[in-house]
Amino acid sequence: MRSEPAVAGVVTGVIPPLCTPLTEEQELDVPSLERLCAFLLDAGVTGLFVGGSTGELAYHTDELRLRVLTVARGVAAGAVPVLAGAVDLSTNRVIAQARAAEAAGADAVVATVPFYSPTHPSEMVDHFTAVSHALSIPLWAYDIPGNVQRKLPAEVTAHLAGAGVIAGLKDSSGDLDALRTALDLTAANGARARGFSVLTGSEVMADIALALGADGIVPGLGNVDPHGYVALHEAARRGDTKEAARQQERLRTLFAMVRVGDTTRIGGYASAIGAFKEGLRQRDVIAHATTPRPMGALSAIEREAVTAHLRTAGLL
Amino acid sequence: MRSEPAVAGVVTGVIPPLCTPLTEEQELDVPSLERLCAFLLDAGVTGLFVGGSTGELAYHTDELRLRVLTVARGVAAGAVPVLAGAVDLSTNRVIAQARAAEAAGADAVVATVPFYSPTHPSEMVDHFTAVSHALSIPLWAYDIPGNVQRKLPAEVTAHLAGAGVIAGLKDSSGDLDALRTALDLTAANGARARGFSVLTGSEVMADIALALGADGIVPGLGNVDPHGYVALHEAARRGDTKEAARQQERLRTLFAMVRVGDTTRIGGYASAIGAFKEGLRQRDVIAHATTPRPMGALSAIEREAVTAHLRTAGLL
Amino acid sequence: MRSEPAVAGVVTGVIPPLCTPLTEEQELDVPSLERLCAFLLDAGVTGLFVGGSTGELAYHTDELRLRVLTVARGVAAGAVPVLAGAVDLSTNRVIAQARAAEAAGADAVVATVPFYSPTHPSEMVDHFTAVSHALSIPLWAYDIPGNVQRKLPAEVTAHLAGAGVIAGLKDSSGDLDALRTALDLTAANGARARGFSVLTGSEVMADIALALGADGIVPGLGNVDPHGYVALHEAARRGDTKEAARQQERLRTLFAMVRVGDTTRIGGYASAIGAFKEGLRQRDVIAHATTPRPMGALSAIEREAVTAHLRTAGLL
Amino acid sequence: MRSEPAVAGVVTGVIPPLCTPLTEEQELDVPSLERLCAFLLDAGVTGLFVGGSTGELAYHTDELRLRVLTVARGVAAGAVPVLAGAVDLSTNRVIAQARAAEAAGADAVVATVPFYSPTHPSEMVDHFTAVSHALSIPLWAYDIPGNVQRKLPAEVTAHLAGAGVIAGLKDSSGDLDALRTALDLTAANGARARGFSVLTGSEVMADIALALGADGIVPGLGNVDPHGYVALHEAARRGDTKEAARQQERLRTLFAMVRVGDTTRIGGYASAIGAFKEGLRQRDVIAHATTPRPMGALSAIEREAVTAHLRTAGLL
Repeated sequence: MRSEPAVAGVVTGVIPPLCTPLTEEQELDVPSLERLCAFLLDAGVTGLFVGGSTGELAYHTDELRLRVLTVARGVAAGAVPVLAGAVDLSTNRVIAQARAAEAAGADAVVATVPFYSPTHPSEMVDHFTAVSHALSIPLWAYDIPGNVQRKLPAEVTAHLAGAGVIAGLKDSSGDLDALRTALDLTAANGARARGFSVLTGSEVMADIALALGADGIVPGLGNVDPHGYVALHEAARRGDTKEAARQQERLRTLFAMVRVGDTTRIGGYASAIGAFKEGLRQRDVIAHATTPRPMGALSAIEREAVTAHLRTAGLL
Repeated sequence: MRSEPAVAGVVTGVIPPLCTPLTEEQELDVPSLERLCAFLLDAGVTGLFVGGSTGELAYHTDELRLRVLTVARGVAAGAVPVLAGAVDLSTNRVIAQARAAEAAGADAVVATVPFYSPTHPSEMVDHFTAVSHALSIPLWAYDIPGNVQRKLPAEVTAHLAGAGVIAGLKDSSGDLDALRTALDLTAANGARARGFSVLTGSEVMADIALALGADGIVPGLGNVDPHGYVALHEAARRGDTKEAARQQERLRTLFAMVRVGDTTRIGGYASAIGAFKEGLRQRDVIAHATTPRPMGALSAIEREAVTAHLRTAGLL
Repeated sequence: MRSEPAVAGVVTGVIPPLCTPLTEEQELDVPSLERLCAFLLDAGVTGLFVGGSTGELAYHTDELRLRVLTVARGVAAGAVPVLAGAVDLSTNRVIAQARAAEAAGADAVVATVPFYSPTHPSEMVDHFTAVSHALSIPLWAYDIPGNVQRKLPAEVTAHLAGAGVIAGLKDSSGDLDALRTALDLTAANGARARGFSVLTGSEVMADIALALGADGIVPGLGNVDPHGYVALHEAARRGDTKEAARQQERLRTLFAMVRVGDTTRIGGYASAIGAFKEGLRQRDVIAHATTPRPMGALSAIEREAVTAHLRTAGLL
Repeated sequence: MRSEPAVAGVVTGVIPPLCTPLTEEQELDVPSLERLCAFLLDAGVTGLFVGGSTGELAYHTDELRLRVLTVARGVAAGAVPVLAGAVDLSTNRVIAQARAAEAAGADAVVATVPFYSPTHPSEMVDHFTAVSHALSIPLWAYDIPGNVQRKLPAEVTAHLAGAGVIAGLKDSSGDLDALRTALDLTAANGARARGFSVLTGSEVMADIALALGADGIVPGLGNVDPHGYVALHEAARRGDTKEAARQQERLRTLFAMVRVGDTTRIGGYASAIGAFKEGLRQRDVIAHATTPRPMGALSAIEREAVTAHLRTAGLL
């Protein structure tokens, strides 16, 4: 159940935000990354998203970001689209990131609203418009207020979608009410009918987002258990909400692995990303669970907690 | 009253965060930038800070950031130090920015805590330590929680100062209680005696920060009225708190110019930066008041409000 | 489809949080309140909730709060339960409110976590335990972090439910992920099987909350259109998610009436409560749309906007 | 250096927010409260403030609030004014509290902006105006955004002061910039000249607030060390900023006692209030360090940490 090559219409299915495997020396671990991509494709994912929060976008240099994209493109080999985050502080910097991603073969780029300085909704419109004009490939909006401190209002999304500035929305806001409004407004203004895609970044309410009309899922946890999310998505697509909910409940339980780390000692991201990578390592997908500096590392006890989570989920 | 060339000890005085003049085509306006630097040096500033929030750090590409630094270095000509912001999302990206700034001749680089993803205090320590190790020039900490959402705790500052990791603090937190704690702790651990510098980024409480022991001021409004801040600083240095307060009151009144813009139409930063640039244009220091995209522009009425502010302050 | 008198088991259905009609002199308008209760009961609601945010709990004296409860009890006449908010700053004050509500005939009281000062989760447990011990009637938890600044963690809810301290949860958090966790945990610990009730306070995602397993709805907008919410609930109960979603979409559109007020002039609550009351007035349920001081009043244009909303919804 | 009886002009000096001693059975400990009042008066305080955050206003019933006021009035015996917090959710409830305080002999009442529901600045004006009209004694504004989530804007304070609605401001915002603006605006509109009082609630920046022009201090820590704050205030009054700073530094160090409690186990307020009460107990001023439910209690180790703080400060 793969989508058409590249982004030729609505993007559906499971498009995991790739983890970025590192060697113990903090270098990109290319063989592990290739194995991870193959593992995901084999599980039936319909696209790959590089440069997301799960991919440690904030932690890597421009060069490493592009190397990840290149590797993912290579493994995807045109069979599924590769979306690339082009996350930076404001318009001119996003354009630089986005053009580099386009040059490196991204099928679409995904950009947030400007951050660091607050931005008025009308300035958000100008931002996405300028980025879109600088590109030949589709631009998506990445709504992730937990990281950029500012919600992309559903009205702005709808305006941009209606005007053809953006081709899709990756909603990592956790705000299902606003997601529903965005779906309603982009249906009302014809954008949905013309192929505007809406993906949820929620690991834990994906079945509901799909029931509300979202096209697909971009779950960080999908690195660790892509089969689970593919099963969830397929159940939702055929209208089997009971089975979708059952899969979701299982994945909700597994998702608690992001809290294995003691956040009096390390940051919450270090816990979550560390747990995903440790899970992939224990599943023999990647070689090391190294997280990028300055993230603190999981302790031995915390790594055992990951094992317990994987066992409960039947993944070991 | 200039400091020694470069950063050979405590940095004192007024070190304005340079505005970044742009042409109407959004290109760097080099002649205007040179005039601005000369205007500030002529007024008696003791350093220049490029790549700060007032300098629109979030809005410019790496290349433009470095061109600004190069121009400022050229005008400063070693007479005063040039500090360069190396602001990016996390350690590896900050190191890339910082090394480029060092290569371009910065006398010191100024870096924030990681942002986008939350960071534990112990991870902040590792962050600054890694950045410092990557540099041959001094590293300063830039505490600006209003933009990076996370306060650099005074205890972390003191630890880093005591360990010689950072050479100074630019405090743009507005939290005078925490500034006082940082001053106390760095005095207690000997860092102050060894030359650890503390600058306040506050335009409106600079006299108090100096009275509490801060060494100098990095005021965005100092672009528009450097003479006022130099007078304030000199009064504070000679212990004339009444005169320092009188200057501060005058500058507090002038600072209201940052609110000329209607924030139901444009962002707050667009208003503040737009007002500074319009003030510089009306004072014939720079040629255009252009702000970088996607900032909204001031209206004619709002520009007249800037004029009124300048007149009240005796600057026109 | 009425529930049993009082709270003898799971509370299901639509339990609107009563608006509090006032005369133009800011006195309780008893005839209007009686008409409102009768209007709601006639539409098929299964309970009444007095002393909620929609009921302007923050704005009324103890005496007026109790008079509203007494009137509601009189109209309900035992046919449906009357739940009473006992909202105050901390344990001792909540107990005073709760005992007064019990004495005035409430079937259950609904209390928030302490506010004004932050409270540790273990202190939340002690809080609800102490309030429960002071009462002979069931205690419910009222989770409304938008007003009390603190989320009642799902784990605390489950602990209290499992221990029999609370008989139900009114979830006005808007956090469907946490609601789902609370439902999961109270199912796992047996509380749901023993009659623990879960109601959502969401006007706009009620169908989803019901699909996730919530028992009923406490929608402020249910004052204006109780028939809509009763239809939504009945569709959800019989498993007709399409029809439930259709009703929800209609009510989502109507809910935009809360934003008729210009919030550069009045507060957001004044807009929302004013719109509900104006809607009830235009529907001839209550005599005046008076809001309690210091709420600003809707303008003539804003009242006409309410009319337009009612017309679109077919309510005029 | 006592002020005139009651509030017949500007209130100056140290006006501690009284702790509320409780017996082990959570009853008001009247003898301890009387000893505390006498201890403070003997140290030279110029007023007493009951019903503040330090007084656990959120935790006590109306009846207990009034009993505290009555006891304080009795000990003050007209020699110093007694200000009473009238803190409740909105206008009508504040009026009820305020009238009760007036009837119980308060010399002034101190009220916050409405909370629970957000309030527009124009509604804040109406709020204070209505409360003021309901009273024969002066009304003060209590600016404590950390607890009521909303800053009283300096412009609103100045408007109310200029109109004679409020007689003073108790600023517990920690925002010295806004305090300075309030002082400037109330000087400019003549309110200060007519006796408008400004007190700071800051324990740790009191010397600066006084240097900026504040009239007095309302320090929670002043329960434990009233002599320190009286000395600080006297130094500031005679213009000896060095000595004021020296006293302040000593009190800043002592203030760290509020963090003795482990906030992974109890709330931050339980730690701070518990530390103040434990300090008073160890200094033999009150009989028990009991805190009101549901606050968690300090452990034996945490109580010893209080001892260490008192010893360092020379208070044992």
